[in-house]
Amino acid sequence: MPRTKGDHEARRRDVSEAVWRVLAAHGFGGLTMRAVAAELGATTGLLTHYFRTKGDLVAYALDLLERRTEARPRRAAGPGTSAVRAALLDILPLTPEATGSNRIWVSSWDTALADPGLRADHARKYARGRDKLRDLIVEAQRLGELSPGDPDRIAAGAQAFALGLVVQALLDAPAFPPRRQIELLDDHLAALAPARGG
Amino acid sequence: MPRTKGDHEARRRDVSEAVWRVLAAHGFGGLTMRAVAAELGATTGLLTHYFRTKGDLVAYALDLLERRTEARPRRAAGPGTSAVRAALLDILPLTPEATGSNRIWVSSWDTALADPGLRADHARKYARGRDKLRDLIVEAQRLGELSPGDPDRIAAGAQAFALGLVVQALLDAPAFPPRRQIELLDDHLAALAPARGG
Repeated sequence: MPRTKGDHEARRRDVSEAVWRVLAAHGFGGLTMRAVAAELGATTGLLTHYFRTKGDLVAYALDLLERRTEARPRRAAGPGTSAVRAALLDILPLTPEATGSNRIWVSSWDTALADPGLRADHARKYARGRDKLRDLIVEAQRLGELSPGDPDRIAAGAQAFALGLVVQALLDAPAFPPRRQIELLDDHLAALAPARGG
Repeated sequence: MPRTKGDHEARRRDVSEAVWRVLAAHGFGGLTMRAVAAELGATTGLLTHYFRTKGDLVAYALDLLERRTEARPRRAAGPGTSAVRAALLDILPLTPEATGSNRIWVSSWDTALADPGLRADHARKYARGRDKLRDLIVEAQRLGELSPGDPDRIAAGAQAFALGLVVQALLDAPAFPPRRQIELLDDHLAALAPARGG
């Protein structure tokens, strides 16, 4: 039977799904050609049509993680502090989907730290995230909702806080249910508001 | 030649050093019997006298990481905010040694997330860290150096901030040199001080 373009696209989607399921269950530490083939119900031989080496598979998985993260739905919010808050809520593992993709992000750090090229890619991604936060912070400062101060530093501090909260919530879900995460985020933002207690 | 107790101890130290060097260079993702044996200049066969399985090796490595972290020198500090600051500075990758051990901690998260028992161990370790921070925060509040508020929440927020800053500094060392990390930590503490700007 001749293969159509549709077959090819469908097969690529199946491969993506299999890679994602392996990452969600085992992280990058468990991402092997054999595991993906098993998840796909295919032979390792078939998989080499898609990924010649383990390195290709890892690069594909990192790209898939970024594309899924970019494509995820975002909270709508007005300008000012509520936009900063929404952007930070979008990072946190507050839903099963967000927990799954955060688990893969945390796992990707070990892979990135072991390879200078991947580490530089990760550094660029997080720098872009800080730039977006900074723009929202500048707007919130203009509206008088956040106290003055270097917006790049406030953005770096907020991103650090959010990344660390992700780690805590993944390692200790009972101690960091969604309500607790939101409470801690609101504490962080309240400490940045002008005339605290006023 | 008969083996002495001293030989045995020396051999154990060599094995520890080899495990540590493999972790520092490749993380838990690269921790294999073969890699440790190569680092030790020994056969994989010899190594099975120490670790029967890969799981034993991982458990040993996690234990080694904790023991080295416990044994590291700490900054001396007076009571109050300066003790909170010193405890957080002790976490950050401000020296090559602290960078090496933080790199291994970050790497260990992927391993811990893939195994419920290891994840629970990690959760307990970080909970102990928050308890210690909380005690220092309570004392700083008593001295009037930190504003009132639930000390458990302030401790969780500070730990989140420090863990996330570790991740940022490891992935992007040029953007987060020691001076920048300390600046951001001082911003975090300043936002928690009473009567800001007063």
